[in-house]
Amino acid sequence: MKKYVGYLIDLDGTMYRGNEEIDGAKEFIEKLYQENIPYVFVTNNSTKTAEDVAKRLQDIQIRATASQIITSSKAIARYIQSKHPNRKVTCYCIGEAGLKEALRQTGVELTDDINPDYVIVGLDRTITYEKLEGACLAIRNGATFLSTNRDHAIPTEKGMGPGNGAITALISTSTEVEPLFVGKPDSIIMEQAIKALGMTSEQVIMIGDNYHTDIQAGIQANMDTLYVETGVTTREQLLTFNKQPTYTVKTLNEWIPYI
Amino acid sequence: MKKYVGYLIDLDGTMYRGNEEIDGAKEFIEKLYQENIPYVFVTNNSTKTAEDVAKRLQDIQIRATASQIITSSKAIARYIQSKHPNRKVTCYCIGEAGLKEALRQTGVELTDDINPDYVIVGLDRTITYEKLEGACLAIRNGATFLSTNRDHAIPTEKGMGPGNGAITALISTSTEVEPLFVGKPDSIIMEQAIKALGMTSEQVIMIGDNYHTDIQAGIQANMDTLYVETGVTTREQLLTFNKQPTYTVKTLNEWIPYI
Repeated sequence: MKKYVGYLIDLDGTMYRGNEEIDGAKEFIEKLYQENIPYVFVTNNSTKTAEDVAKRLQDIQIRATASQIITSSKAIARYIQSKHPNRKVTCYCIGEAGLKEALRQTGVELTDDINPDYVIVGLDRTITYEKLEGACLAIRNGATFLSTNRDHAIPTEKGMGPGNGAITALISTSTEVEPLFVGKPDSIIMEQAIKALGMTSEQVIMIGDNYHTDIQAGIQANMDTLYVETGVTTREQLLTFNKQPTYTVKTLNEWIPYI
Repeated sequence: MKKYVGYLIDLDGTMYRGNEEIDGAKEFIEKLYQENIPYVFVTNNSTKTAEDVAKRLQDIQIRATASQIITSSKAIARYIQSKHPNRKVTCYCIGEAGLKEALRQTGVELTDDINPDYVIVGLDRTITYEKLEGACLAIRNGATFLSTNRDHAIPTEKGMGPGNGAITALISTSTEVEPLFVGKPDSIIMEQAIKALGMTSEQVIMIGDNYHTDIQAGIQANMDTLYVETGVTTREQLLTFNKQPTYTVKTLNEWIPYI
């Protein structure tokens, strides 16, 4: 079995499920830590800061620091920074604390002006018509349109609520402009995660429970992939897809001997 | 030239343009009135009541009564009434006063419960995440999904803001359920308008400025159509379309001799 020198790991459905711990997750990360194998967590969630996410993992005894968390917000902020290393850019932003904080940390200027460089859209549960109107106007004025992820629905206390991909669809339908999506399965978040490890895609493996985001992201980034049966995609669903993950396990306990 | 015994007439871009009057509109309607030719106005706008719209026309000396106004809200309410003549139906409604009022007038019960018979979506400039979430949950629970119209964008004070078709796209993207659209160019509003005249589609003509809504609606309802060059679609754009309107005029003054 190939030994991977770096690991990219999904969170929801892979490390935890809502407030539940997932069997094997803690032991798996502990083994990576003991073996000194670098790992980063890759999440489409844009509403929480890397610090919040690290804290959540620490609370369930999973070793993680903020620098090991690549959220779609952090990926978008770093992407913009890499495109404009020498100038301040302005962004009209729809999103929650995690996205705004990530943008501010890389020196992006947040604005309500409808002539910004970028329109950036992430999940915002305080969305208003005025905010959406401003985003549409800014895009019509020529701003570059980025979106944290394509997720159609997110679990809420009541059931499945609209995800960021749905909010983004409102804006792209109105303006007839498609955004560049940053989160899994798209490539920008994966590029930023590999960069954070300082490795190449051949050296690392992508681990996750969701075929459409995690496994697809790995496949599209030319990485080996490990599917774990503890989340969204069932084994039966997995078998219906054309391109299969490199490996499949029931829980991450099964993978510990191969680290 | 064929004489039409009934007229279906668009409003915005045909009778007025924002707060501006349109050349020939008043004289054209006056001629219909003098000749005793029945006419109704057909509008995708769902936010205003028929009474409000009639008042607006009266304010610019265009003869109109509330019963001559078929809004997408009125069409949706009458459609639901016709489907369930003998029972009260419940609707989870996103929309403004015009839509809610039209539904109440036909005896529909508006509810916040997420197990309604219908989810009805119209333009709502006080939209919140919670309202959108409720609509998604109700559709996932099996409610029938109706939407007032497909309009992607609407003119606002600042430019082009999101229209109801964009709000609807958020919900259909999240739920993966497509609604039945009621407004032009779809058929339900046209069926309700013809019913209001008590005529058949062969007897009437549809007049409007917007190829994608007005003229398409007429063509799809097997009506003759009259395009007027006073609104959204330019003459140059018109010529690029495969199916042409039956007649084209610069202003409605040109049509008065044929009434």
